[in-house]
Amino acid sequence: MTTNQLISEIKKKQSFLCIGLDVDLNKIPEHLLKEEDPIFAFNKAIIDATHHLCVAYKPNTAFYEAYGLKGWKALEKTINYLNENHPEIFTIADAKRGDIGNTSTMYAKAFFEDLAFDSVTVAPYMGKDSVEPFLAFENKHTILLALTSNKGAFDFQTKTVDNQELYKQVLETSKTWNNSENLMYVVGATKAEYLADIRQIIPDSFLLVPGVGAQGGNLQDVCKYGMNKSIGLLINSSRGIIYASKEDDFAQAAAKKAAELQQEMKAILD
Amino acid sequence: MTTNQLISEIKKKQSFLCIGLDVDLNKIPEHLLKEEDPIFAFNKAIIDATHHLCVAYKPNTAFYEAYGLKGWKALEKTINYLNENHPEIFTIADAKRGDIGNTSTMYAKAFFEDLAFDSVTVAPYMGKDSVEPFLAFENKHTILLALTSNKGAFDFQTKTVDNQELYKQVLETSKTWNNSENLMYVVGATKAEYLADIRQIIPDSFLLVPGVGAQGGNLQDVCKYGMNKSIGLLINSSRGIIYASKEDDFAQAAAKKAAELQQEMKAILD
Repeated sequence: MTTNQLISEIKKKQSFLCIGLDVDLNKIPEHLLKEEDPIFAFNKAIIDATHHLCVAYKPNTAFYEAYGLKGWKALEKTINYLNENHPEIFTIADAKRGDIGNTSTMYAKAFFEDLAFDSVTVAPYMGKDSVEPFLAFENKHTILLALTSNKGAFDFQTKTVDNQELYKQVLETSKTWNNSENLMYVVGATKAEYLADIRQIIPDSFLLVPGVGAQGGNLQDVCKYGMNKSIGLLINSSRGIIYASKEDDFAQAAAKKAAELQQEMKAILD
Repeated sequence: MTTNQLISEIKKKQSFLCIGLDVDLNKIPEHLLKEEDPIFAFNKAIIDATHHLCVAYKPNTAFYEAYGLKGWKALEKTINYLNENHPEIFTIADAKRGDIGNTSTMYAKAFFEDLAFDSVTVAPYMGKDSVEPFLAFENKHTILLALTSNKGAFDFQTKTVDNQELYKQVLETSKTWNNSENLMYVVGATKAEYLADIRQIIPDSFLLVPGVGAQGGNLQDVCKYGMNKSIGLLINSSRGIIYASKEDDFAQAAAKKAAELQQEMKAILD
């Protein structure tokens, strides 16, 4: 998917919501556990109930890997279901990968070709040659960790490196990499006040913003400091939406939570 | 596995060799492609031919994920084969994971429980709460990226942060984390001259050292600067061993290469 297609979809739906599909079998309605593939059954119900309210879905691969083969199979079924039924929706493999060049190429193939996601999240610690293999794929997007939503972000990311915080160095340096137009960045909603500075460095890039809801981030603040002329934001909510109810009405409850966020977004876009 | 068990095994085998199982279907002997599971068939042959020469095996997860479900299945069969037949061998999931707390817990379960590896490699960028969930597992080891073997290591890892290179900050800071005795570190063989400094900060920890062979690192230099009183080194070689031949004799050729490294290690230990 091109960035322009994503922007069109945002305008059409009046939403820049991304829904995180982080399925924990301990948290889904009990009746689903009888299904052959409870993870996919849960995802399908959530997607069917919310696809008109969001522009992106983001499965976090950890939640699938934790269930081994059956988890990986559920991930495969989920991305296939999305690509077949909602090709207009942007898909993010939240995998936080990154390795030496030939190995990153294998990860890129895993997520862009085998699973056919539109994008994948990547960690910057190993530098240019660990990220460029992902950037080489046309119309695929590499979402680089810049400033994450957790407390540990202050351990290294905000430390000063050559008179500039590390996360800003990551932003600046990544702009010089081959095919850097395929980059997006992760910036946590819990650090909204940093967004004004971030926009000085990367005014045009899309930001994937986790941390609204369960982690305490505020949507209004994120938009105030982070929105650009093409919107430039994908706001993720996972637990706040998908676990809105553990009863039979879980999908409707998720849709209700998603609609609340979409309405808030619509008001901001107006 | 405890660190003491690993040290005993090193002394017994006179080897601190780790063999990287990075299986690329384009590089393995053609006759294996007819097997039901060519990846596992390749790994099994390599393990059968080399297990007496090495103390660790390290599958890089990227090479398995790139083949989707069948890749994940081959990884599962490989770790099960190792645990059943060679429980004395240390196993490393080279996965370079790391995410916010609840998500890192899922990754830890994936690699320590579902797949039952002894250790997993983890990226430090997201800080303390992204690594501690891995450290919470008893007799399991978390191998933190410090200074990697690739060129991109100079993009951020060697940059000065508060009067100290970032990789040194990572080493220092990680020592303060809960259960830090379960930490090991990745230090690339291509940067052997840094090892003396690194040993000042973490004199007792085990180091996983990739980059000997195909990437150009030198075993003698690594041992000169990196070895401690408990040896403290696991030297990884992947391509140099497993792709020594593409013919029917691939496993014997791999064993020959592994034996050369083991003999060099034995001479150093003597």
